[in-house]
Amino acid sequence: MIFRQLFDAESSTFTYLLGDEKSREAVLIDSVLDQNERDLKLINELNLKLKFLMETHVHADHITGVSKMKEVFPGAKSIVHEDCGTNCTDIYTKDGEEIHFGDYKIKVLATPGHTNGCVSYYLDGLVFTGDALLIRGCGRTDFQQGSSETLYESVTGKIFTLPEETLIYPAHDYKGISCSSVREEKNLNPRLANKTREEFVEIMNNLNLAFPKKIQEAVPANLQCGKIHS
Amino acid sequence: MIFRQLFDAESSTFTYLLGDEKSREAVLIDSVLDQNERDLKLINELNLKLKFLMETHVHADHITGVSKMKEVFPGAKSIVHEDCGTNCTDIYTKDGEEIHFGDYKIKVLATPGHTNGCVSYYLDGLVFTGDALLIRGCGRTDFQQGSSETLYESVTGKIFTLPEETLIYPAHDYKGISCSSVREEKNLNPRLANKTREEFVEIMNNLNLAFPKKIQEAVPANLQCGKIHS
Repeated sequence: MIFRQLFDAESSTFTYLLGDEKSREAVLIDSVLDQNERDLKLINELNLKLKFLMETHVHADHITGVSKMKEVFPGAKSIVHEDCGTNCTDIYTKDGEEIHFGDYKIKVLATPGHTNGCVSYYLDGLVFTGDALLIRGCGRTDFQQGSSETLYESVTGKIFTLPEETLIYPAHDYKGISCSSVREEKNLNPRLANKTREEFVEIMNNLNLAFPKKIQEAVPANLQCGKIHS
Repeated sequence: MIFRQLFDAESSTFTYLLGDEKSREAVLIDSVLDQNERDLKLINELNLKLKFLMETHVHADHITGVSKMKEVFPGAKSIVHEDCGTNCTDIYTKDGEEIHFGDYKIKVLATPGHTNGCVSYYLDGLVFTGDALLIRGCGRTDFQQGSSETLYESVTGKIFTLPEETLIYPAHDYKGISCSSVREEKNLNPRLANKTREEFVEIMNNLNLAFPKKIQEAVPANLQCGKIHS
């Protein structure tokens, strides 16, 4: 499989390009509008056919590149979970569904809690966790229908029950670490390792985070799949 | 194998942590002094025994973390190519030598040209190219005993002759791309793909690059393996 982890330094967002070497079918997970030119160039250079533009959730920290990318690749279909609240998406998924490209299949794991439409995508020992689970952290739960209780159930019930050697590829990292594993996060995540639900909720209730800089432009734009109306 | 690509945003440098799952022996390639705390924490969290601190060359854009890391892991040995000009290194390598950790072996490929002591490290389908070959680019050749002619021979003779599916992990990327492949760079690198030596030298002679911001502190410090004398 062709696998490229891509990074947007401004929002510290990871985008993932996965491609099938034989058929050249590819998917792009969590694209960032500001990086469309880079990603488009890479997709073309690698001679890939973009089949799906997959979002892990409606992001609050950057505008998705989905709509702009679809202008260039009109055959590509956008995918989000049915609870995301968008009305512009081509395919709405739910927990347990499979997404096929080339010889590969991605399994959708509903992992709400950061937002109510959050999913993780599992494929052959890799899991793309979006903002549900970050390296030694997790997404905040204090806006966009967030719920600490729900996030706890998602992480412990859906992600931590994957095989321990599964590699975790999150939507962000702020320290320059590119991936983790289920084993690592089960044992080392300061918010979740060996924590009860009550302890986790208490931690999340006391984060005292600043309001995200871009939320007021990003969320409305992302509910429109990244279309910006001027 | 445990494999972690780590990124220093200030200098856009990649550091690589490779570990053997069974014996827990590990190597760190191109550590960055400013990130020592992060890397040390990760090595300890993963329960790894740091065996080697390997440098691809004497860097001009950041100070290596080698000396500081050795204070914490006194058993770890530092490695550079014998032409690097340091007198503080534990092990000096040359082309073709093998470095063993756990069940793995890394082969040293001398790839001078950016500096005269540059190496690439090859291990099981991965090659860590330092500044010899970057994604769609290469290291500059206008200081530190650089030579465009020599770099051309290194890349075309040593890196481009590896199996085409070999993944390239460079010391830097400035666009948020994490890796490439020999096939990609042979076909898509604008300085090297289908270029003669003369064409490459001409391109390198006309880059008109600014002098690196940190060279005057980084090179003297790195010639001392990252020791800073106050």
